[in-house]
Amino acid sequence: MAAIPPSFLGRLFAVSADPSVISFAGGLPSPAVLDAAGIADAAAGVFADEGPRALQYATTDGLLPLREFIAARYRRRAGLDVTAANVQIVNGSQQCLDLVAKVMLDPGESVGIEAPGYLGAIEAFSLYEPRFSAVPVDEAGPDLGALERALAGARPRFFYAVPNSQNPSGLTYPDSARRAVAGLLAGSGTLLYEDDAFGELFFDGRPRRPVGAALPGKAVLTGSFSKVLAPGMRCGWIVAPEPFLSLFNVAKQAADLHSNHLCQLVLMRWLETRDYDAQCRRVARGCERNCRALLDALDDLCPGLGHTTPEGGMFLLARLPPGVSSLDLFEEGIRRGVAVMPGRPFYLEGGDDVVRLNFSNTDEDGIARGCERLRDALHALGG
Amino acid sequence: MAAIPPSFLGRLFAVSADPSVISFAGGLPSPAVLDAAGIADAAAGVFADEGPRALQYATTDGLLPLREFIAARYRRRAGLDVTAANVQIVNGSQQCLDLVAKVMLDPGESVGIEAPGYLGAIEAFSLYEPRFSAVPVDEAGPDLGALERALAGARPRFFYAVPNSQNPSGLTYPDSARRAVAGLLAGSGTLLYEDDAFGELFFDGRPRRPVGAALPGKAVLTGSFSKVLAPGMRCGWIVAPEPFLSLFNVAKQAADLHSNHLCQLVLMRWLETRDYDAQCRRVARGCERNCRALLDALDDLCPGLGHTTPEGGMFLLARLPPGVSSLDLFEEGIRRGVAVMPGRPFYLEGGDDVVRLNFSNTDEDGIARGCERLRDALHALGG
Repeated sequence: MAAIPPSFLGRLFAVSADPSVISFAGGLPSPAVLDAAGIADAAAGVFADEGPRALQYATTDGLLPLREFIAARYRRRAGLDVTAANVQIVNGSQQCLDLVAKVMLDPGESVGIEAPGYLGAIEAFSLYEPRFSAVPVDEAGPDLGALERALAGARPRFFYAVPNSQNPSGLTYPDSARRAVAGLLAGSGTLLYEDDAFGELFFDGRPRRPVGAALPGKAVLTGSFSKVLAPGMRCGWIVAPEPFLSLFNVAKQAADLHSNHLCQLVLMRWLETRDYDAQCRRVARGCERNCRALLDALDDLCPGLGHTTPEGGMFLLARLPPGVSSLDLFEEGIRRGVAVMPGRPFYLEGGDDVVRLNFSNTDEDGIARGCERLRDALHALGG
Repeated sequence: MAAIPPSFLGRLFAVSADPSVISFAGGLPSPAVLDAAGIADAAAGVFADEGPRALQYATTDGLLPLREFIAARYRRRAGLDVTAANVQIVNGSQQCLDLVAKVMLDPGESVGIEAPGYLGAIEAFSLYEPRFSAVPVDEAGPDLGALERALAGARPRFFYAVPNSQNPSGLTYPDSARRAVAGLLAGSGTLLYEDDAFGELFFDGRPRRPVGAALPGKAVLTGSFSKVLAPGMRCGWIVAPEPFLSLFNVAKQAADLHSNHLCQLVLMRWLETRDYDAQCRRVARGCERNCRALLDALDDLCPGLGHTTPEGGMFLLARLPPGVSSLDLFEEGIRRGVAVMPGRPFYLEGGDDVVRLNFSNTDEDGIARGCERLRDALHALGG
């Protein structure tokens, strides 16, 4: 993080508000697939039925029917042996990063993290001053030798993994890697923290088995409605065994009493009256269409860029030609009306040789034009 | 906190769901004064105008018009020299307790806190393992000698104060105490953390001058829409000088990216189309009516109870007759269909000789009947 100029995030934000810039830098779902009309109807129904009750304080654990919906879905799709008692509602899965770290970490303890890894996790964990053990990931999954060395050496409190369509890389652990990671963790004192923000966005619609399914009592799993229904409503969840969930509940209560009660009611009403599977498929199909457009355009226009090939999600990682810096490409891209996300913030060290490209929030035409500008920017930098 | 049996909070929760029990134990605003119809209209308007934008990710600092509204209100009512740039939106003022502690406290540092003090603050701060310096408060304000000794001795990082209609005591600092506290803090290295959750609920409608108004650059102030508009929407704020606000913003982003965007839009729409001052007066008048009913009933039926006499807010503190324990009164009260909040959790030591009584969420008839049951419970305990 120290490698990123402090002015950078401000520039990134300014860029995202400039309509002349085609942005691959952000991470928003497409507004075209969000069901605003359905959610407006759900809200009207909640106010009609609940009146002032919809506005009152509520319990820290979250709305029971919503927790039951989440638990039932994990039982059905992933074979997890969980009930509503294992589920706590939070403000998006981002809040779990903060609260898990708060519950688990003492300063100087170690955390295992993927390289590249999710920026929001690095930021949230860093405030608790852990030592990080980086475990490289690629198409084969985590580097098992590096993970094994970390488990035996630094003995991390937990290993934070995003096995499904990871942000920033778009990588998904193959089944063999899931089994191997679970096997290594089972024989260690390290817990698994499995962040599944993108598990509903596989292009083939097939749910992947959580790594933690093979680690009963030794894994926490987090998810979110942010990518499929409404990021701005900040509604996610953690699934965890006792006694961890009780500790987490205490931290959640101290943090903000409970998550937004009105929005939990509205989301539950939407889930009761609409088709969540169909909504997931609609969002995933939009991402798939854009992803194919981006892959085609990159291969066609920017053959010097290596890249991952996502099975789902909203991101891919592109490797820059030798000698091209991601921060330079960011600056040159902005001059030419295209924004990319430099790789550095996703790594504890290095990362200037890659950029993250988001494809969920730019249509196929924008993707083609954006890649032309990217090609020109790369040429200008000698790439 | 260690003095409270672990089963207690569960029993308190069960009691609050039992319609046969008259509860003075909770802290909810009356549903009768919440404007559910107006907020439903505001939500419909937001969906009609914003569509999917109402559901998207948003910036960490919060909705600009909402921050401008809050800053303008402090300028007008309290004479504070602040703009929207000094305001950050959070999930109710409870979240400030967590984030201020996270930003300010290293383990073992000292925090000044009122005795009695707000339970949610004691819980939130405790997770950061500070040493607490208790400063007794009564009708005259904080014990200035105790505050002076704490400032010179433990040198707290901040003094956490609720000068307006404090939870649990209902006490309000007189003007002389405000000046004296500001004077002591100005000459120390200790910051002021001024929690103003109840400042809109003075029965006389007159705003009180924040203690921090006399401590420019050395005070943070927090507030909330929870008591007046919608507790379940979890929308509050912090007002602070730079560079503190930048640190706070980093912690907020790591904690949960941003507060609920949809609800910020809905609250702003409500504020633009309705009369916030009139709503504050309506809520305050309801609290005043109930408070008078409770004071009259206590003096009439339970003359052995001493009590504070609130100028606003939702709570008062009652002192039990010698030999009566607040935990015993809780149990005896439940048997007779009335719930009180034992005093212990509001103190670092002691507190079993007082109970907190909430009057916002029980009507005048319920208050009279509840006090009859309280009288009988006291008699049964020999009080």
